[in-house]
Amino acid sequence: MVDKLEVETAFRKLQNEIIDALEKADGSGIFRRDEWKRDGGGGGITAIMEQGTVIEKGGVNFSAVFGELSKEASKALGVGADAFYATGVSIVLHPKNPFVPIIHMNIRYFETENGQYWFGGGIDLTPHYVDENDARYFHDTLKGVCDTYNLEYYPEFKNWADTYFFLPHRNETRGIGGIFFDRLDGEKRNTTKNELFQFVLDVGKSFAPIYVHFMERHKNHSFTDAHRKWQLLRRGRYVEFNLLYDRGTRFGLETRGRTESILMSLPAEAHWQYDYTPLPGSPEAATLNLLKKGISRV
Amino acid sequence: MVDKLEVETAFRKLQNEIIDALEKADGSGIFRRDEWKRDGGGGGITAIMEQGTVIEKGGVNFSAVFGELSKEASKALGVGADAFYATGVSIVLHPKNPFVPIIHMNIRYFETENGQYWFGGGIDLTPHYVDENDARYFHDTLKGVCDTYNLEYYPEFKNWADTYFFLPHRNETRGIGGIFFDRLDGEKRNTTKNELFQFVLDVGKSFAPIYVHFMERHKNHSFTDAHRKWQLLRRGRYVEFNLLYDRGTRFGLETRGRTESILMSLPAEAHWQYDYTPLPGSPEAATLNLLKKGISRV
Repeated sequence: MVDKLEVETAFRKLQNEIIDALEKADGSGIFRRDEWKRDGGGGGITAIMEQGTVIEKGGVNFSAVFGELSKEASKALGVGADAFYATGVSIVLHPKNPFVPIIHMNIRYFETENGQYWFGGGIDLTPHYVDENDARYFHDTLKGVCDTYNLEYYPEFKNWADTYFFLPHRNETRGIGGIFFDRLDGEKRNTTKNELFQFVLDVGKSFAPIYVHFMERHKNHSFTDAHRKWQLLRRGRYVEFNLLYDRGTRFGLETRGRTESILMSLPAEAHWQYDYTPLPGSPEAATLNLLKKGISRV
Repeated sequence: MVDKLEVETAFRKLQNEIIDALEKADGSGIFRRDEWKRDGGGGGITAIMEQGTVIEKGGVNFSAVFGELSKEASKALGVGADAFYATGVSIVLHPKNPFVPIIHMNIRYFETENGQYWFGGGIDLTPHYVDENDARYFHDTLKGVCDTYNLEYYPEFKNWADTYFFLPHRNETRGIGGIFFDRLDGEKRNTTKNELFQFVLDVGKSFAPIYVHFMERHKNHSFTDAHRKWQLLRRGRYVEFNLLYDRGTRFGLETRGRTESILMSLPAEAHWQYDYTPLPGSPEAATLNLLKKGISRV
């Protein structure tokens, strides 16, 4: 049965593969790698690209941490254990061109000293302008990955993403959704730990081809100041989601994780304008109309 | 004894006085007033200035709301009542010039149908560059307002501000502090409701002269792209505080307040840069060194 070292090794390798693919697709941008240690045990490698040709700001993080679980954390997780191990890869990319979408991907593995474990993760896409072909390609690719393992995964995990990536104070979805899943264990899912591991790894491996496809397709799309303005306002919403609702961000900051690694998800630049409403009939209004629950599969 | 109508009337008048003073000091910017109604009872007037000469983006909000308290809210507040009334004035201003500080002011009054009431509020200053004269003027002015009523107010409310306006994940204070207080009632404070009302109103009235002083003093200070960059990064921290920790913001969004009024506190533009550290010996490093707990009185 797959053990934590095997998961960690595969995640480390995946981080490097994704970095290589993104640097190649960007053409000029290079990821700066920062290795860090965690006081309680373990550490990670935070890799950041700033001011590339296609990617304005983005991070591809790997971490593998272990140590004592606080009583509160043990209770909150319902694991009745006092030592844990966790490893994961986490990505957010903010492109320069407003016609390239923002993307997020995360895969993670968690286990306790008393033998419990689970996998979690997801990918979701946040276009500044919704493109039907992109949306179809994105959802179809994720459906393909899910369907290889279990036909029930895609509808369940897609619904989970639609529920999770939502800003109640705006009554807007963050973007067009994707998949989201948490606490998958083999026994509960009538499968093996090995197969769940392969599934999660395949989700991770699907990331680079998906995003490189969007980069290639849209990086030379011409855009105006008005398009850029809309992109910066949508990034404001991304900041709102990440600081108000994102569980990983809030958990990370509350448990005194490495702030700069956690907040790599924030864009280089974001704007807010009071009560901004796009002109009726504009492409911006069309996109906003699609950011409603239940129509993420355009 | 002062009643809610008297408080509300004074707060409405204060909003208008502050708007007039800020428009006059700005020279070109005008506050756009939006009147809104709350579904459960009451409403407010949100006044926003965008792209003035001195003020880049800011809001001066008034609200007076009433209605049923949810069981959760009643329990959280510990009031054992099911109807409430609340009125307040709330301000955040983001200036264009990095040498003019960001400022926040809030005064509020709350009462329940079973006769409990309290006042709360505060003012805090967030300079992009700490100026000793400004800091002294600011704290001295607030001390003067407090000392007129009770010599214990200033040290207590200053300490409260230092504790509250703090970003634990950055180990930074939001700015140089000021005063913060909550749930002041006459009986607990050995004073009268009338006197507390006068104190809170005086805090509110101190706002316009304080900020107009800073506008006049710094609006023509020349600045470079490097100063502007630092201002935008500091605004990123302001966004982090408001979305992660600000109680008014979180309570407002959770109870489905008017999102655009609550989030008027966010700047027009904010930046994030991975692991940004000012050059040793620079004015930016000097400011950052002062944003530590316990040295807010420069």
